[in-house]
Amino acid sequence: MSETVKVAILGASGYTGAELIRLLDTDPGVELAVLTADRRAGQSLGAVFPHLAGVKAPPLVAIDDVTDWSGIDVVFCALPHATTQPVIAGLPDHLKVVDLSADFRLHDVDVYADWYGGPHQAPDLQKTAVYGLTELARDAIARARLVANPGCYPTGPLLALMPLIESGLIEPGDIIIDAKSGVSGAGRSAKEGLLHGEVSEGIHAYSVAAHRHSPEIEQELSRAAGHAVPTTFTPHLVPMNRGILSTIYVRTHANADAATLLSALTVRYKGEPFVRVLHGGALPHTRHVRGSNLCLIGAVDDRRPGHAILVTAIDNLVKGAAGQAIQNMNVMLGRPETAGLALQPVFP
Amino acid sequence: MSETVKVAILGASGYTGAELIRLLDTDPGVELAVLTADRRAGQSLGAVFPHLAGVKAPPLVAIDDVTDWSGIDVVFCALPHATTQPVIAGLPDHLKVVDLSADFRLHDVDVYADWYGGPHQAPDLQKTAVYGLTELARDAIARARLVANPGCYPTGPLLALMPLIESGLIEPGDIIIDAKSGVSGAGRSAKEGLLHGEVSEGIHAYSVAAHRHSPEIEQELSRAAGHAVPTTFTPHLVPMNRGILSTIYVRTHANADAATLLSALTVRYKGEPFVRVLHGGALPHTRHVRGSNLCLIGAVDDRRPGHAILVTAIDNLVKGAAGQAIQNMNVMLGRPETAGLALQPVFP
Amino acid sequence: MSETVKVAILGASGYTGAELIRLLDTDPGVELAVLTADRRAGQSLGAVFPHLAGVKAPPLVAIDDVTDWSGIDVVFCALPHATTQPVIAGLPDHLKVVDLSADFRLHDVDVYADWYGGPHQAPDLQKTAVYGLTELARDAIARARLVANPGCYPTGPLLALMPLIESGLIEPGDIIIDAKSGVSGAGRSAKEGLLHGEVSEGIHAYSVAAHRHSPEIEQELSRAAGHAVPTTFTPHLVPMNRGILSTIYVRTHANADAATLLSALTVRYKGEPFVRVLHGGALPHTRHVRGSNLCLIGAVDDRRPGHAILVTAIDNLVKGAAGQAIQNMNVMLGRPETAGLALQPVFP
Amino acid sequence: MSETVKVAILGASGYTGAELIRLLDTDPGVELAVLTADRRAGQSLGAVFPHLAGVKAPPLVAIDDVTDWSGIDVVFCALPHATTQPVIAGLPDHLKVVDLSADFRLHDVDVYADWYGGPHQAPDLQKTAVYGLTELARDAIARARLVANPGCYPTGPLLALMPLIESGLIEPGDIIIDAKSGVSGAGRSAKEGLLHGEVSEGIHAYSVAAHRHSPEIEQELSRAAGHAVPTTFTPHLVPMNRGILSTIYVRTHANADAATLLSALTVRYKGEPFVRVLHGGALPHTRHVRGSNLCLIGAVDDRRPGHAILVTAIDNLVKGAAGQAIQNMNVMLGRPETAGLALQPVFP
Repeated sequence: MSETVKVAILGASGYTGAELIRLLDTDPGVELAVLTADRRAGQSLGAVFPHLAGVKAPPLVAIDDVTDWSGIDVVFCALPHATTQPVIAGLPDHLKVVDLSADFRLHDVDVYADWYGGPHQAPDLQKTAVYGLTELARDAIARARLVANPGCYPTGPLLALMPLIESGLIEPGDIIIDAKSGVSGAGRSAKEGLLHGEVSEGIHAYSVAAHRHSPEIEQELSRAAGHAVPTTFTPHLVPMNRGILSTIYVRTHANADAATLLSALTVRYKGEPFVRVLHGGALPHTRHVRGSNLCLIGAVDDRRPGHAILVTAIDNLVKGAAGQAIQNMNVMLGRPETAGLALQPVFP
Repeated sequence: MSETVKVAILGASGYTGAELIRLLDTDPGVELAVLTADRRAGQSLGAVFPHLAGVKAPPLVAIDDVTDWSGIDVVFCALPHATTQPVIAGLPDHLKVVDLSADFRLHDVDVYADWYGGPHQAPDLQKTAVYGLTELARDAIARARLVANPGCYPTGPLLALMPLIESGLIEPGDIIIDAKSGVSGAGRSAKEGLLHGEVSEGIHAYSVAAHRHSPEIEQELSRAAGHAVPTTFTPHLVPMNRGILSTIYVRTHANADAATLLSALTVRYKGEPFVRVLHGGALPHTRHVRGSNLCLIGAVDDRRPGHAILVTAIDNLVKGAAGQAIQNMNVMLGRPETAGLALQPVFP
Repeated sequence: MSETVKVAILGASGYTGAELIRLLDTDPGVELAVLTADRRAGQSLGAVFPHLAGVKAPPLVAIDDVTDWSGIDVVFCALPHATTQPVIAGLPDHLKVVDLSADFRLHDVDVYADWYGGPHQAPDLQKTAVYGLTELARDAIARARLVANPGCYPTGPLLALMPLIESGLIEPGDIIIDAKSGVSGAGRSAKEGLLHGEVSEGIHAYSVAAHRHSPEIEQELSRAAGHAVPTTFTPHLVPMNRGILSTIYVRTHANADAATLLSALTVRYKGEPFVRVLHGGALPHTRHVRGSNLCLIGAVDDRRPGHAILVTAIDNLVKGAAGQAIQNMNVMLGRPETAGLALQPVFP
Repeated sequence: MSETVKVAILGASGYTGAELIRLLDTDPGVELAVLTADRRAGQSLGAVFPHLAGVKAPPLVAIDDVTDWSGIDVVFCALPHATTQPVIAGLPDHLKVVDLSADFRLHDVDVYADWYGGPHQAPDLQKTAVYGLTELARDAIARARLVANPGCYPTGPLLALMPLIESGLIEPGDIIIDAKSGVSGAGRSAKEGLLHGEVSEGIHAYSVAAHRHSPEIEQELSRAAGHAVPTTFTPHLVPMNRGILSTIYVRTHANADAATLLSALTVRYKGEPFVRVLHGGALPHTRHVRGSNLCLIGAVDDRRPGHAILVTAIDNLVKGAAGQAIQNMNVMLGRPETAGLALQPVFP
């Protein structure tokens, strides 16, 4: 591998692709070698994303026109769900791959089939994929060739809940995640429901008890619990572009209160550059992480005895997608984990 | 009482006052006789609210300058919490009063003292106040002289939950209300935390497990349950001007599922002009009620067996404040309940 | 004609159609008899617009399925530009028609062909159409069978400029209109450029010197001037749903200053229910007209001697579309002009 | 001077102060040595700006408590207008100063007195100040001790207009600047007019022909013209946090059209890292520069012969304030001009 990491981004015309480019541009050790976008093939990056016109990058190409992968080190795959499996299966073995779709997140291909409406097309490859919640799977990621980057919704809640379940401080079978997301999580495709007129000045819940990130959350929480647990997960669409706030209701064990939970998380995430545990009753705002790879976690006691409320905040395009993907690349390549991710949040 | 209802609005320079005026202007049977606003006394309504410059209304006066109440039939009191008690105590007996502050909502004056930081100043008057959730207290409101208009947050959840508790379909001790409000609920006062730069493009929880609408919710739910129940209530601030969406997590009894709950609510609210129960898995958006007195209620099954998720939507300034106040006035005076409230929502 | 006006709305599934329905619902003398929307035929109004689920209205039908027009009095045509001509040409003679598309606004069919990319398909009908800026064409509208409702952008500036040109107070050949519109003006169609993520938190100019409302503005200003005048018109897209603010730069004649212009406009619009001329240096906000049929006009002196700056504000969906259409219907039928239009603006 | 530049920021609790910190944090050659904020003295940076809790920075202090300036190299002064003069006058001579207030922008202290309501308190110091529009005053800035950082509104228009006036391509006496700004330009102070409820979902003009950036614009344009020219400048408040779009109407000389103007600007700004001239009719969006130090310039022909329309876009907090201030520091110290300013824009 050359000293400069040569990167290909498949699906560079979506918001996640753009965010990968924005962040990687801050890393002098990375070269954007290939950008694909089938519908925009032949166009310059600046034509598709005028805010990135100043980035040194090649023009967009169709994925089928990339015939020589020998100069590439890492592939970020930001293609739509269900289309990704054959693409990654067809990549040469020397490539490290971070997949930002859902295609390799579910270990059980039957669960995949249930939620995504068809059989998995690369079940053997699936077995090699590591679920890439960086802080909780760093060693496995370091050894992986294929990392399935977590979904935007699962990232914050899992970072808060996994250590607490593992340490027996909360009841894994009684967790409610009420999540609120900005619209960029829905991508850049032209749908009536995502128009400014439909989204602004209002809020609504959607895909309640039926969102495709549910099995992903349950897979990980069940793993931590050691047995299958159903989880309540309710996504809402908020009139903002970036950010996910998750308000999480838990029942505690062993007389644990919010302070107990925060102490356990503080110990668990000591030294982590991107996870920040808040104290003194402070709770995170999504605007405090905008544009950054941070995950903030706070907690307060519930009015119902034996219960607590956790709140997490991330930028869905960064820690919930492109940022965590870059973090995973850094781990896979043994690079400094904060490379390309050292930016402070943008506020206001 | 004259045929035309003569109305005084105390505290007419806030958003609630403005909304009372906007709605009452559509009712030819109402005359805006007195508008008070101490800091804006002497100014025209149009100077304080340019959008209302076309309303036929008297200039604003200081409340102490209103010396003759003989020509007034009804007083809407939209003054700040804690300042309202002596004002209403000093009003002549012939006046019907709808108070939009929190001062007369809590039946137990000790609870009031705990949450509002000082003893109640009109405990005898408190005993006569009716908690004015119109659909659930119509008869008492019709006989009342003083109605305590419900808070914006309690209104939607109580309309959904009270009938379900009373019919034994849900467990009253295991209710979580995750509420999301627009910024007009915080009023028009100049605070750093309400600036556009601080509120837009983000979301956060606030006053978690410590909001002053908690005791109000618990008072009513405990009354329905027949015993004291703590309730989890988490408010969030959303970057929109109007609307409250409440996502409510309940444990059901007697094998009830979402369809059971919706059927019970449909029966309970049959013929009600302002409560609409949704079916077929439909869930409300706040933008579907904007500017109207509607409360929409939907429900879906939770992934955890024996649980369900209810969602309610109101416009916090209308059904959550000014609209319900007018509805209560109509009931108190034996007028058609929809007078001044027949407007369809404004979208987009 | 029956006492109740029976109305058909062609193209009821767009924002303009919804706004017609919201407003007409406040008029007890109007019945919504026919609603068409080809792509949504067979659906209820509430399925297409949940905020209108409470309106008494028939289900949507395809326009070709409307075979009997005998019970209809008035047709509002809210179909896309260029598709409208044959539809209206095919309507029975007894129907009064208000067309909200651009198809009959341009008197010169060659100009139409230049700007809309094809020959006019109903040139004879075009000759009978009246350009329906109500306050300036009331008599002709009263006699018309077909009214071409003005575009959203031209409405405010023409109301401000036409009287000033006619009275010789400003130079017609030296007018700049810098207009800022909310997104609902672009309709409800799913386009990438109208997504929340693309529109919010930013502003841009578009179709500069090339917008299709340009010839409409020039047609009317030239008529007032008595000779052809080019006009500078620059539209901008603002991250809000409703409203157009037009900042207009003019060169004055005869030593006229802003006060002179305002005096002339005050005289001209005396008694008009929907045009309000501001004084004392006050300038309008779009939020002061939201949801209403108002047009506000203000003016201040420019720093360049002999120049002044006018500012107009309307709600593009009301005075800029549905409201003015209803106003025109009222004039055509000899009804009170404010019927269905008496609502105060909604703020915040 | 040490190799690491030691920086003091006076007035670090405003949006401009926060933006200076966000940007300087990306520059390993800069140390945040002193942060002052009188009302927040004693608090940590993270308490005032939670999004900056991860920045290595000292706690805030009162300005009077800074008694030893010997270890400081550069002072950024982000204090309110009119309070800045005595503060800077009292700083030791060895300090380089970039002042972000208006206090030293106007060369003529009588003009200052007219617009700011009182006599200038440091007229001798004023004579030494350089107006710091970096691209147009680089040599003078390199020699300056005190740089007056340009106002947010003037920056974009001056970058577009100054070269065109100097080359005789446009008429300096006939320029109209119609500017649209996000709310962060008004700062973080708690004022009713800046509340989310007052600003969102609407647009308005303010301080028309009376804004304090007018004399600053006229000073520079007059300098380029060689004689005094009045300029029309109309600011508008747009419901977004960041960005200024300026639509500029000019009369051209010598048969120049938009292409001519763009060619001249392209030549003038060749090699500039932060000024980008658009071609092919492209016009900038503010969202294409958000968070970056870029200024984009586009142009199209007007419909009035002999006229053209220029459009510029900047982020008011970056190129319009903190970014240009850092750029000026870099020039003053002979550092690479892009240090701390290499970030791509953040979109969406």
